[in-house]
Amino acid sequence: MPDLSEYRQLAKDMSVDAVALVPGPNFTRALGKPFMSHERPFVVVIPAEGAPAAIVPNLELGSWALVGFDGAVFDWRDQTGYDDAFAALAAHMPLSSLAVEGQVMRVFVSKALTRAMPDLRIVDGEREISGLRIIKTDEDIAALQAAIDISERALARVIEDVRVGQTEVQIEQALIQALFAEGAASLAFAPIIAAGDNSARPHGKARADYRIKAGDALLFDFGARKHGFAADITRTFFVKEVSDEGRSVYDTVLRANLAGFEACRPGVTAHDIDDAVTSMLEASPYADRIRTKTGHGLGRDVHEAPYIMRGNDQTIHAGMVWTNEPGLYDLDNFGVRIEDDVLVTENGCRSLTRFPKDLTIIGR
Amino acid sequence: MPDLSEYRQLAKDMSVDAVALVPGPNFTRALGKPFMSHERPFVVVIPAEGAPAAIVPNLELGSWALVGFDGAVFDWRDQTGYDDAFAALAAHMPLSSLAVEGQVMRVFVSKALTRAMPDLRIVDGEREISGLRIIKTDEDIAALQAAIDISERALARVIEDVRVGQTEVQIEQALIQALFAEGAASLAFAPIIAAGDNSARPHGKARADYRIKAGDALLFDFGARKHGFAADITRTFFVKEVSDEGRSVYDTVLRANLAGFEACRPGVTAHDIDDAVTSMLEASPYADRIRTKTGHGLGRDVHEAPYIMRGNDQTIHAGMVWTNEPGLYDLDNFGVRIEDDVLVTENGCRSLTRFPKDLTIIGR
Repeated sequence: MPDLSEYRQLAKDMSVDAVALVPGPNFTRALGKPFMSHERPFVVVIPAEGAPAAIVPNLELGSWALVGFDGAVFDWRDQTGYDDAFAALAAHMPLSSLAVEGQVMRVFVSKALTRAMPDLRIVDGEREISGLRIIKTDEDIAALQAAIDISERALARVIEDVRVGQTEVQIEQALIQALFAEGAASLAFAPIIAAGDNSARPHGKARADYRIKAGDALLFDFGARKHGFAADITRTFFVKEVSDEGRSVYDTVLRANLAGFEACRPGVTAHDIDDAVTSMLEASPYADRIRTKTGHGLGRDVHEAPYIMRGNDQTIHAGMVWTNEPGLYDLDNFGVRIEDDVLVTENGCRSLTRFPKDLTIIGR
Repeated sequence: MPDLSEYRQLAKDMSVDAVALVPGPNFTRALGKPFMSHERPFVVVIPAEGAPAAIVPNLELGSWALVGFDGAVFDWRDQTGYDDAFAALAAHMPLSSLAVEGQVMRVFVSKALTRAMPDLRIVDGEREISGLRIIKTDEDIAALQAAIDISERALARVIEDVRVGQTEVQIEQALIQALFAEGAASLAFAPIIAAGDNSARPHGKARADYRIKAGDALLFDFGARKHGFAADITRTFFVKEVSDEGRSVYDTVLRANLAGFEACRPGVTAHDIDDAVTSMLEASPYADRIRTKTGHGLGRDVHEAPYIMRGNDQTIHAGMVWTNEPGLYDLDNFGVRIEDDVLVTENGCRSLTRFPKDLTIIGR
């Protein structure tokens, strides 16, 4: 039986009757196995007192048996629908308040819960529930490092082959192949390969109709997933040559990135780090090109707490991992982002990413 | 400006003030571009009357400009949060009822909506909203066929190399590499490669510690994504040899699959198709191994309407695409599933999948 005591304690701390988990990073961590969700409600409910219960799609019972779950299970079949299972849960474990993962649970599941328990108060416990995995264990860090190492080897391989005239999509496909060849279990997210003006869109999509040319900025934002953990790395290169402006912008972003490392140690707040990084960008001639916060936590989720931004007074502790990814984005021209994955240590921090970040010209 | 008139009409038909879309398949279809979601609310609201409005994360404005959206845009920055943008939307477009995609919108977004509009009635419009793409266009079908063709070429390549002693994870990695080599834009979903007893888990995860052996069933359930559309194909092979029971179970599943094609034509219901398929399984000696409905719609989503199951009286029309995937699962032994992607035509149906489905022995 998985140890759910942390979640039980969390329900007490949050003064709710129970905590609910649906398939996703917390579910995988708590139950020890990944599950899919799709159109089928699948919910584990961990009360402050007593045994847990679960609503499980019938076709998952075979996989579910491997979990060793020691609580009531209400399974349901596609043919009869899931409302009876929620009603059975309500009869078995009447709840008046429930903390859920607001960024994971979808509306059709929350509606099924409130159909079965009309007076149920659903509380968004995303911060608290995901917060249980904010301090990484040694095993977590080893998984993250493995994902990062795979990602860096793939990038090194791909930039060797970049040539003027290739499309962003061609480079994207080469990167994906390299990630799997280097051992990725899956992609942490759809990679961003963006050249020229597209590099100024923080979530730009690779284009099949744009051929990279000398002088372009070429941004790679990508990561492998390994052992359940996600890498998230950005490097921005220049193709064959770089303008003075490109060099100056790159240098500004790099200094902001270094300021993030400088500011990071246990006891400071997420605000403090972003403030150090963003102040550096604001003091540059490119202040109007700032579009994002400094970064976000990284682990089983690509984006998780702590969010490294001004106004977030969350204290930084040893064992947290966050992305240090300042950028400057000129939509009429180009963008530069440099992103490292940073582990907070007892005395400061260290980068889990080791890919060089000096300005680099690539392409043939 | 994207044409949002269907969504406007839908709001009228559903007697709600507006329809909301969040990043996902409907959003991509409606706006013409894919967007990511993560921890940032991003919502397009299309009212029954008047111009649409959108809540857009500030860092997406560069990508958003490419949409050509002709309506009010309320953007928000990470540093200040999104509640002000929702309040501005509420002031600009007061709503008393809103249809949302219940299987896509997450609880934190619905809570942001109701914080800004406390009396808002949120209706789960998943069926109606996603229903707008249930009849595939010629362009949709071409994209699906491209995804399927890539998937089949990848499978043909991978089964050539299967050898006794390989792990499920090794075969999974080979398949993923082959999918990208054949032109996949991404994976439609994490592939299922399951041998022996693992093949009896409909969503079994590939194991790194199980080596396939002679006599094993070896199930591949996977698909490429191309041009926004997802393939979803299953084939079950036997490694080097097959038992009499394996042969008999395989034959039963194949006959059920063929019964699905036989039953499918415009005018029947989803119930009718599942009933034909499931009755065939129930009449066999393996009725206790039935664990799933016959299948689901397929398009931009891997799982979408029409759900091919008893009790679903939805009428089948030409242009729908669904998965015909009967299976028999014995958790103590092995499972067999055969899954084709089926297009409903004016007079019947035809399989978009063309990979042979006669019982096939593979492995060296």
